[in-house]
Amino acid sequence: MSKTIFYHAGCPVCISAEHDIIDLIGKENVEVVHIGENRAGLEEAERSGVKSVPALVTPNGNVLHINFGASLAEVKG
Amino acid sequence: MSKTIFYHAGCPVCISAEHDIIDLIGKENVEVVHIGENRAGLEEAERSGVKSVPALVTPNGNVLHINFGASLAEVKG
Repeated sequence: MSKTIFYHAGCPVCISAEHDIIDLIGKENVEVVHIGENRAGLEEAERSGVKSVPALVTPNGNVLHINFGASLAEVKG
Repeated sequence: MSKTIFYHAGCPVCISAEHDIIDLIGKENVEVVHIGENRAGLEEAERSGVKSVPALVTPNGNVLHINFGASLAEVKG
């Protein structure tokens, strides 16, 4: 089983959701990727179907967009 | 610590997210409330700050809106 990945861009909505997700799922069960600082991560997020951050990609590949911090277009600038 | 509550309205987006959340958090850790069938649940969701379903309310009271199935106004009809 592959890992759950939490994509974010450092925005306040992202940080708040990150804390909530880590509390719910456990820090050891989720990989956190900052797509503002990690270009490869941003491209990986796009390929996974992530449209906005914060978003969680589950081990089976489903994308859960959580609240709304920023669109990927905004992060790309 | 109070429980995590998953509010939904039976829509396909809701059902898909419900499976993902249960896989991630564990069935025993999340209470599932169908606000289309449970009027008290709908009012409770509104008081918690839920604007659309599916949504997850964390034990500390934060609301995580997941993807988008339906607004609460649509569920009220």
